[in-house]
Amino acid sequence: MGNPVLVEVTRGGLTESRHEGAVCVADAAGKSVIAIGDVATPIFPRSAVKAMQALVLVESGAADRYRFGDAELALACASHAGEPDHVAGVERMLARAGLDVDALQCGTHWPTHRPSADALVRAGLPATALHHNCSGKHAGFLCAACAGGSELRTYTAATHAVQREVRAILENLARSRIDDRHVGIDGCSIPTFALPLAALARAFAVLGGEQGLAPRRAAACRRLRAACAAKPWYAAGTGLFATELMSHFGARVLVKGGAEGVYCGALPEQGLGIAIKCVDGAGRAAEVMMANVLMRLIGENPLLAKYARPAVRNWRGTVVGEMRPTPELLG
Amino acid sequence: MGNPVLVEVTRGGLTESRHEGAVCVADAAGKSVIAIGDVATPIFPRSAVKAMQALVLVESGAADRYRFGDAELALACASHAGEPDHVAGVERMLARAGLDVDALQCGTHWPTHRPSADALVRAGLPATALHHNCSGKHAGFLCAACAGGSELRTYTAATHAVQREVRAILENLARSRIDDRHVGIDGCSIPTFALPLAALARAFAVLGGEQGLAPRRAAACRRLRAACAAKPWYAAGTGLFATELMSHFGARVLVKGGAEGVYCGALPEQGLGIAIKCVDGAGRAAEVMMANVLMRLIGENPLLAKYARPAVRNWRGTVVGEMRPTPELLG
Repeated sequence: MGNPVLVEVTRGGLTESRHEGAVCVADAAGKSVIAIGDVATPIFPRSAVKAMQALVLVESGAADRYRFGDAELALACASHAGEPDHVAGVERMLARAGLDVDALQCGTHWPTHRPSADALVRAGLPATALHHNCSGKHAGFLCAACAGGSELRTYTAATHAVQREVRAILENLARSRIDDRHVGIDGCSIPTFALPLAALARAFAVLGGEQGLAPRRAAACRRLRAACAAKPWYAAGTGLFATELMSHFGARVLVKGGAEGVYCGALPEQGLGIAIKCVDGAGRAAEVMMANVLMRLIGENPLLAKYARPAVRNWRGTVVGEMRPTPELLG
Repeated sequence: MGNPVLVEVTRGGLTESRHEGAVCVADAAGKSVIAIGDVATPIFPRSAVKAMQALVLVESGAADRYRFGDAELALACASHAGEPDHVAGVERMLARAGLDVDALQCGTHWPTHRPSADALVRAGLPATALHHNCSGKHAGFLCAACAGGSELRTYTAATHAVQREVRAILENLARSRIDDRHVGIDGCSIPTFALPLAALARAFAVLGGEQGLAPRRAAACRRLRAACAAKPWYAAGTGLFATELMSHFGARVLVKGGAEGVYCGALPEQGLGIAIKCVDGAGRAAEVMMANVLMRLIGENPLLAKYARPAVRNWRGTVVGEMRPTPELLG
């Protein structure tokens, strides 16, 4: 099944580029409210399911044992920008378990927050694994492994107890089995498990509403949602879409992007989950898709409007075009 | 008319993302050798036509008056990476015309060459318009305006003599008229004129073969091609696709990318021009498309093979997938 163009990028009077996408919004029973394009073929959710991956941290008892508050739990759910307090938070998480940066196997990249990267350069300091956007998630895995007594060295392997538990959690929330052929390796070296958008949307509805979950898992979902709502800056960073949305809407909206054009979210009050994939992997278009889907579900809102139809500017700040939703996306 | 998927991005056993594209390879008479997808709808070529925009600099006599050699001419054709010798070259171009950085209206961004950006940060220096990837092209426009006695302050306007001449040159090389409704503003504030891929491919064939051009224009094409072949580092930068290709193939291959997934080129020996547009604007896919098109036209080659099917790696360097051409692209 094909996917329609959902976002057009214009310049002058012409459409310069086009982004196809697929969208599913569903409730915890799996009933679709919105279904656009191919919602049945498995896609890799990448970082969009970090809040589900972080359930292991809470359910294992590690979050309690290491006295993690909202900031640490939001970091476990984060693709953070590598700003100083993100880095300090991850370092603190590791220290509570008696670990340090050397335990992280996510790899290294410069902070995506440019001023933070520049500050490192000015100080003559290298980027470390702590600056990797996934370092909070990895710290969470390591803490769960410590608390559970499993081996630390192999925590990124699909066969490790922590990753096996992540897989079981995803299957539980999505009410779907993950095919062994649908396991890839993520950018930060952990497994990523492909699921259809319909199953991912359902899983996010369950993350938001806890329907049919064991009490311990339901409580863990509640605790992670509350952490992201309370400390949304730790879940992403300064000026970023996810942080701005969660700062504005609080517990009403949980959103998380993933590499290659994935965006997912939960609207607990409405009992809905959202899963979006931009076919070509463009994050810029996935954000526009999410903003427009949220407008359909929540209604008009100035913050959403800003992201739903952003201007394209040249290097001197002149508006030269826009990214706009197509009728298929507007519904 | 639709555009087929030409590049797939895989992870594990699944295709994670897909890039649609259109390709035209044509001779100077406009006869297509390869035509994939929509080659008839106008697209903005953006920076891909910088060598054509630089013809004004040579034809105006400015390149002679200011004693420009291959490095300066390659910079006028460049999307450069902002490395120190790029910046020094552009500064030299401006100085020869009695100008400096303040004359540039391209806007400012950090060097795309990360070590060069970091060196600025370490030295506590700001990025300037000289670091903008288009600064060499803008210096060329300014020098042409100086030599032609036209106003400097308005050189980026579509109504300025230099931009009107660029438009006439594009129409001459493409043997096509540019519709007034198909003029946009580029990222560096100059006009960008939309043409169909078929017309752009033909224009590049003419840039390479000079068929039917007035002697002065033919000589200018020859001089700019020779400059890019002699100084390909000045046309892009360290480790970049265009520089690597032109370093390897010399005068046999002229290639130039543009924003939003455009890639164009000329194969003078074969009398062919190439024009490619990735529908979603992804530069990563446009490069893969160009590498595969060149393999079809030139034959197997280790350098092209490296770019024709690049590995996707995670942050620790492990291969986790690949970008691969589809049968439609392989032909």
